[in-house]
Amino acid sequence: MARRERRGLGRSRPARTGGVTGAPLGDAATDGDSATGGDAATGGDSATGPVAPGDGSSPGRRGLSRRGLFAAAAGAAGAAAVGTGGFAAGRASAGGGSSPAVFFGEHQAGIVTPAQDRLHFAAFDVSSSASRENLIELLQDWTDAAARLVRGLDVTEEGAVGGPALKPPDDTGEALGLGASGLTLTFGLGPTLFRDRDGTDRFGLADRKPELLAELPHFSGDQLDAALSGGDLCIQACADDPQVAVHAIRNLSRIAFGRASLRWSQLGFGRTSSTSTAQQTPRNLFGFKDGTANIKAEETGTVDAQVWVGEDDGPDWLVGGSYLVTRKIRMTIEIWDRQSLDEQERVIGRDKGEGAPLSGGGEITEPAFSALGPDGRGIDVDAHVRLAHPTSNDGAKLLRRGYNYVDGNDALGTLDAGLFFIAYQRDPVAQFTAMQRRLAGSDLLNEYITHVSSGVFAIAPGIREGQHIAQALFED
Amino acid sequence: MARRERRGLGRSRPARTGGVTGAPLGDAATDGDSATGGDAATGGDSATGPVAPGDGSSPGRRGLSRRGLFAAAAGAAGAAAVGTGGFAAGRASAGGGSSPAVFFGEHQAGIVTPAQDRLHFAAFDVSSSASRENLIELLQDWTDAAARLVRGLDVTEEGAVGGPALKPPDDTGEALGLGASGLTLTFGLGPTLFRDRDGTDRFGLADRKPELLAELPHFSGDQLDAALSGGDLCIQACADDPQVAVHAIRNLSRIAFGRASLRWSQLGFGRTSSTSTAQQTPRNLFGFKDGTANIKAEETGTVDAQVWVGEDDGPDWLVGGSYLVTRKIRMTIEIWDRQSLDEQERVIGRDKGEGAPLSGGGEITEPAFSALGPDGRGIDVDAHVRLAHPTSNDGAKLLRRGYNYVDGNDALGTLDAGLFFIAYQRDPVAQFTAMQRRLAGSDLLNEYITHVSSGVFAIAPGIREGQHIAQALFED
Repeated sequence: MARRERRGLGRSRPARTGGVTGAPLGDAATDGDSATGGDAATGGDSATGPVAPGDGSSPGRRGLSRRGLFAAAAGAAGAAAVGTGGFAAGRASAGGGSSPAVFFGEHQAGIVTPAQDRLHFAAFDVSSSASRENLIELLQDWTDAAARLVRGLDVTEEGAVGGPALKPPDDTGEALGLGASGLTLTFGLGPTLFRDRDGTDRFGLADRKPELLAELPHFSGDQLDAALSGGDLCIQACADDPQVAVHAIRNLSRIAFGRASLRWSQLGFGRTSSTSTAQQTPRNLFGFKDGTANIKAEETGTVDAQVWVGEDDGPDWLVGGSYLVTRKIRMTIEIWDRQSLDEQERVIGRDKGEGAPLSGGGEITEPAFSALGPDGRGIDVDAHVRLAHPTSNDGAKLLRRGYNYVDGNDALGTLDAGLFFIAYQRDPVAQFTAMQRRLAGSDLLNEYITHVSSGVFAIAPGIREGQHIAQALFED
Repeated sequence: MARRERRGLGRSRPARTGGVTGAPLGDAATDGDSATGGDAATGGDSATGPVAPGDGSSPGRRGLSRRGLFAAAAGAAGAAAVGTGGFAAGRASAGGGSSPAVFFGEHQAGIVTPAQDRLHFAAFDVSSSASRENLIELLQDWTDAAARLVRGLDVTEEGAVGGPALKPPDDTGEALGLGASGLTLTFGLGPTLFRDRDGTDRFGLADRKPELLAELPHFSGDQLDAALSGGDLCIQACADDPQVAVHAIRNLSRIAFGRASLRWSQLGFGRTSSTSTAQQTPRNLFGFKDGTANIKAEETGTVDAQVWVGEDDGPDWLVGGSYLVTRKIRMTIEIWDRQSLDEQERVIGRDKGEGAPLSGGGEITEPAFSALGPDGRGIDVDAHVRLAHPTSNDGAKLLRRGYNYVDGNDALGTLDAGLFFIAYQRDPVAQFTAMQRRLAGSDLLNEYITHVSSGVFAIAPGIREGQHIAQALFED
């Protein structure tokens, strides 16, 4: 339990194996620091950005951000080292099996990635005092941290227990030993980042705002809580272990301190969509299979046509990106639960057991909207499956990635529960908005749901090694 | 997708395997019911309690409760069939591997059961209009439902999709195909069940109230929200899949409709305690391992001495039971995160990486409260580990089963997060209350935590087959 061993633990993030007592897992280069003192060997003040002795894995270092969280690899050259060598080599295996490709690439992870089991979603407001440079710095710091987190590593090399004893740890530590657990981190930019509600162009980005990135219109029945809606920036953290997703949002929030603050956040405990043909279709809190007809990663033609922003779509900086719409949809499940099975199935247009369309067949049978099924039932003219179907929407589909949520109960003893809807698309106006107008107008489901939160975000394209989130947005 | 197949799905609760299209999984005894009509074969009005045709597994049936949810096996003889044959045979294997012993036995499950990953806890108020008979009936209905749920079955035999088309389904359906996922359901009785806050003995139980079952005293620093505290009844649902725990609480709440209503509830996403030596020690949101010194199921002598109510403790109806204390402890994690590693470790009295006491050794080394560790640090006089240790508490220990929670964030952008503390014990006065008085007085951790909810419940002993929850309480 000497200080040296504790630093070792922080550096290597071993999977929870126990039996580490007394085993010096770290590198020997931290020899010589005292157990109780200011720990001169790693720099008493990390804000001055010393190079940790004996650690040569990061060939270049930039000046640190003002929070001073990134004493180790950071900045362009440092980020390159993250992806290609240094601690990525040999240590990623302790992080639960994710590969470096999960963060750097043509598109951001967490979109066509097979949907993980758990979600922590967070929207942020950039501080009113932050400059364009502060914003860029934040995106750099988030990039550096995210590239580590998705590998199951602490947020910096010093991490939770490897830093100087008299300094707050860089990492909050609750995910030590949990590995990567399939973590993906997906970053988005809200309309207010480009021009705020007062019309101010805070960061010199107004002329780069995508035309399609606009606040969603009011839909019939919307009861949105403004405090739970919008945001300048967002992070979707998905993982198979909720503690890993929570740890990521918490530490990224912490890194943002003074530059951006949490506006609203949402935990989701069960995925309601499949994004791969290898996944079974899960159920929402109405008890129905959800997302049977979702876009799947394997449908690469559909993904290219309906999810990714194309070269001719513009703006250039967003090519390879996407648009994200979030909607928190509260379900009045007690009222739903009092409906007959027939009525529930009429509302959805599918049977509850198997998820087959009422026009017959099995779950993956295409609905036949003018046919009657073997039991004599057809699909109602206002059934959810009909109104949401591509044939009712000029062929438009969405890549959905929603999660069930329960936020406790209200004072009347009814569960505060529903669906946190997440959808990715190439064109939010032609896809989500057009579809939602139709649904808001006459979907039978409207009697049992209320939209209480809304968000729309531009999802920057994938991050190249050595670059930061949305870097092209800030370049000429 | 004919009605018959859908009933089949409801009865058998297959694990999510796909490929069930067109396969009649149910029994053939439901032949003859029409796909659209009132379904005379299973009784158009289940409240009259018909015996389902062709289902001879339940030799006896009692009159149904007024909610009419239990058209199939129910009551004393029916419950016996649940445990020993009928659908328990051959179908439990589809439910994820739990055994019948998980519900019926000497003690309730969910106490020494190895702590599952996820929690949904709910406290209920019994309706002001409910009679003693209504209360007993509710406990019978909960018993019948719980015995099925812990096997991964729907809440009744008709379940989510096996009932008459024109009737609301008995089961809400969102756990179809998920199996048991290690579900345990643990039932408790609050002090107000015996005598309410006005002093009224609503159910003729006042003279059977355990002397030790009293509202907890006010502790220094408590900021309890009354609406999030107390309750006449409680249910702890633990499972490895949160959707299974949520499904159980939702359906048990639904069964209680008109007799008891949800008072407050809490989801927990990550366990913070181990209750078996086979489990690794998890971390709380302070980033520290929590529950290293917890009572483990394998320590049967300690469990008998400190967890179960003994024969001489009284009252007789509670022998083999326990007492549960819940405390929702909000952590001011942003402030904690700004403390140095040294200070965090001084507060806890253990090192953060490994969880070893500062007096030296490894995680499971006993703290030496007057010794200095190899790095020259000792355990502070007000360190959490010292004040909570049995040597500071006349040998008292607790069996803890707490969970981390995040309930979103507050308006200031700080996470609404902490620990939902759950502890079982033989004597809440000598164990939790005595310990908490000491902690509330001088625990260094108090600077970073606030207790916002509190509950105390008598945990009835295990349920015998053919009986219901807390049956002895109501018998002469």
